[in-house]
Amino acid sequence: MNILITAGGTSEKIDNVRSITNHSTGRLGKAIAETFLVQGHHVTYLTTPYAVRPIATEQLIIEGIETTEELLAKMTQLLATQVFDGIVHSMAVSDFSSETSITEETLIQGLAASLAQQQDFSTAGIEKTIKAEIDQLGRQLQKEKKISSNTERLLLFLKKNPKIISMIREKQPTAVLIGFKLLVGVSEEELIKVGRATLEKNQCDFVLANDLETIHGETHHGILIHADGQTESAETKNDIAQLIVRNVEAKGENHE
Amino acid sequence: MNILITAGGTSEKIDNVRSITNHSTGRLGKAIAETFLVQGHHVTYLTTPYAVRPIATEQLIIEGIETTEELLAKMTQLLATQVFDGIVHSMAVSDFSSETSITEETLIQGLAASLAQQQDFSTAGIEKTIKAEIDQLGRQLQKEKKISSNTERLLLFLKKNPKIISMIREKQPTAVLIGFKLLVGVSEEELIKVGRATLEKNQCDFVLANDLETIHGETHHGILIHADGQTESAETKNDIAQLIVRNVEAKGENHE
Repeated sequence: MNILITAGGTSEKIDNVRSITNHSTGRLGKAIAETFLVQGHHVTYLTTPYAVRPIATEQLIIEGIETTEELLAKMTQLLATQVFDGIVHSMAVSDFSSETSITEETLIQGLAASLAQQQDFSTAGIEKTIKAEIDQLGRQLQKEKKISSNTERLLLFLKKNPKIISMIREKQPTAVLIGFKLLVGVSEEELIKVGRATLEKNQCDFVLANDLETIHGETHHGILIHADGQTESAETKNDIAQLIVRNVEAKGENHE
Repeated sequence: MNILITAGGTSEKIDNVRSITNHSTGRLGKAIAETFLVQGHHVTYLTTPYAVRPIATEQLIIEGIETTEELLAKMTQLLATQVFDGIVHSMAVSDFSSETSITEETLIQGLAASLAQQQDFSTAGIEKTIKAEIDQLGRQLQKEKKISSNTERLLLFLKKNPKIISMIREKQPTAVLIGFKLLVGVSEEELIKVGRATLEKNQCDFVLANDLETIHGETHHGILIHADGQTESAETKNDIAQLIVRNVEAKGENHE
């Protein structure tokens, strides 16, 4: 089978010297890739600078990206030129990228100047004016070469990134698609509920739901949620990798 | 001489999976440390996880930190237990740490609710109310385990970190202190002006001023500004290291 795996975590630049990084060691992605390779499949592996990488084999191609924008460009190119039987999207992709930064003082002055001209002091009227001013600040301000340090409080405006996984399903409707959902400190019930919502929203075949608080080195509690609602659990990165590979193989055979 | 060097860049947590990182390879700090070591000095080297490290020798002690808070704790301990002849503070320290994150919608609703009760619609009156509401949101909101992704625009509140370099001078008034100032895309004149201001503000003996746009691999244009106003330039990391070591040695001898 021809498999595409994403792993690691993206970084979004705030200015020329700072960025927001989604931390991910990439160790689960590495385990999944190596398990597919042992089974004789071809793997294209997209990863980020500080993540660990699978051991090189002839069946493995590794490509590096840093930002969500670079991921989107690389994905678009790969999905336009190859057909994948399985796509495992385990990369921690930034939900937001930096729009602008603004000192507290500039925001307050901007809002007050807009509101001082206001006639309509209903809550709805005030909300509308504030929203328009924030939109204007977000659009107007250039991203600085280096953010100001001349304030006690800086506000960073972050705008929502496009969801890569929606694009994957659109471009490759026949691939077995595995999404990932990482939560922090929730119940097993909540984890499954949120994982199912992710699966439906993104039209995945499977979602691997996991909780940061139950990941410690090799110990890694993961729940593989199937499209039909059934779930399977694994307790280590290698077990999760086996579970995913087995299910992609089984589902892929049914496709054929 | 007993030398303390900081290098690399700090990271500040936003939530359990994201952080803001100040990028620095640590290669200049490594060159400076190795030059001091070759001259027979003792070096304590404070650095961050992804920065390069000097080659180990018996005269070198390396200590790792990640956040500005950890740097502050480690510095406080070192400065209380040792006397340093020279302190080279080249680490890129975050100016801000994360206070809270808030969706655009929550901010707008909070501000509008405060303003709707307002009697005084002068600009000053509005500014005061907005400031109070922003302060309250900053204080009140707990740092989330994982920031919300359920908005088109997220606002990250960042609060100013304490300046480590001021603390250094206070604790070790006799050390030869070298500060660093990195700007992006400014003239040589501006670079020297800002570097001098940094030197005076922080009571440094020297400031190494540099511009990200004139750093490419080993090529690294740096201006060493002396307390008496004179400047010396260097064009590579090794030249900068030599310049710093020579001046710390000369100044340190005058002290004795």
